Amino acid sequence: MIELYELTGIHPGHSFSPYCWRIRMALAHKGLPAKLIGWHFGEKKLPRGQSKVPVLVDDGEVIADSNVIAQHLENKYETGPSLFGGAAGEAHAKFIGAWTDTVLTPGLFPLVAPDILAHVKPAAQAYFRQSREARLGMSLERAAELRDGNLPAFRASLEPLRQALGTQDYLGGEEPSYADYTVFGSFQWARLTSSYEILAEDDTLLPWLDRMLDLFDGYARDAKGI
Amino acid sequence: MIELYELTGIHPGHSFSPYCWRIRMALAHKGLPAKLIGWHFGEKKLPRGQSKVPVLVDDGEVIADSNVIAQHLENKYETGPSLFGGAAGEAHAKFIGAWTDTVLTPGLFPLVAPDILAHVKPAAQAYFRQSREARLGMSLERAAELRDGNLPAFRASLEPLRQALGTQDYLGGEEPSYADYTVFGSFQWARLTSSYEILAEDDTLLPWLDRMLDLFDGYARDAKGI
Repeated sequence: MIELYELTGIHPGHSFSPYCWRIRMALAHKGLPAKLIGWHFGEKKLPRGQSKVPVLVDDGEVIADSNVIAQHLENKYETGPSLFGGAAGEAHAKFIGAWTDTVLTPGLFPLVAPDILAHVKPAAQAYFRQSREARLGMSLERAAELRDGNLPAFRASLEPLRQALGTQDYLGGEEPSYADYTVFGSFQWARLTSSYEILAEDDTLLPWLDRMLDLFDGYARDAKGI
Repeated sequence: MIELYELTGIHPGHSFSPYCWRIRMALAHKGLPAKLIGWHFGEKKLPRGQSKVPVLVDDGEVIADSNVIAQHLENKYETGPSLFGGAAGEAHAKFIGAWTDTVLTPGLFPLVAPDILAHVKPAAQAYFRQSREARLGMSLERAAELRDGNLPAFRASLEPLRQALGTQDYLGGEEPSYADYTVFGSFQWARLTSSYEILAEDDTLLPWLDRMLDLFDGYARDAKGI
């Protein structure tokens, strides 16, 4: 019995955390069913004193941190294809995760943060505004005003992704890997919270994004969003 | 019999192309001896009409492009450890290569290009200056004046590398892989052509760089440079 505690918005089942999506996709990749348990910003009810989602509870074992959870799933379950494709695949995926955490997600953050507020339940909006405005160094409204100016640099920062996906269908090669889910989680976060057009209509990343949305019978495409 | 055509500077054996270093390291990783053949900018004597180095000639077969050469070595030779660690390892390494080609090397280029001129043989200096100044959009001397200003952004761009190497000795994990050689090639290019301090003294990347220089009995550390 696997339970996944994940961030939820005001609408039940509206899961939009990039880190939780890594695990949703990893579970689907492994063909593992899980009970999804929604958690709102600021709530205290996570298992064993965890303060951030995702948290996975697997037969009573509590595991936090998306990358640690992915390793756990890979090591414990023989079902479904490998998430990493071996030790070197996993080690190389760490770089892709590091790029996602230091370039992609921080680049997306000021573009989508202004729109996330509307998805946070009223009781958590003050917390969300205060914590996110501290991170942005400005108000959410000011960030919204500046985003058109930030967009070209953000789009340019995706060039490694475009180049890598110019020669293969997925970051994992012919099949998706946890590296794809890591990067995709951030795009899914943006997609489910904001209608701001983060990619140009002719961006060569769009076919890959479509492939990701098509996986597992359109699991990510069908997810509830804005 | 393997021959590697590689860029050389005015001093015999002074090989400084980042792409050639990828292959030098890949050959050492596989334990494959090769005859190194120096090639100067602008020369015409490469096999089969190739216009860029590295070019590998393996028992008469001519292979160009560093990544294609690495694939060839991986597929043909069972000797030595794998360069990629399987299909997913190779696919993930493509992203690291793409990051190197679109972020690392272009970021290093304006920092070291002014110092490379001195390593180019006199007959090729006009070609080097013209082609590099076109790429820089300014004179080599102007690039040298601006580099202190460009340095902070360059150092910040290395954050994915720092984060990935914060949890493992090599990009390949416990052992180096072609992904390490890809990234290292660019640092070696800088190291062998310029005394400009591209990394701060306390940069957390330095232990990794030292490990790379130590590989294969200090092969890269002992290479001739400035």
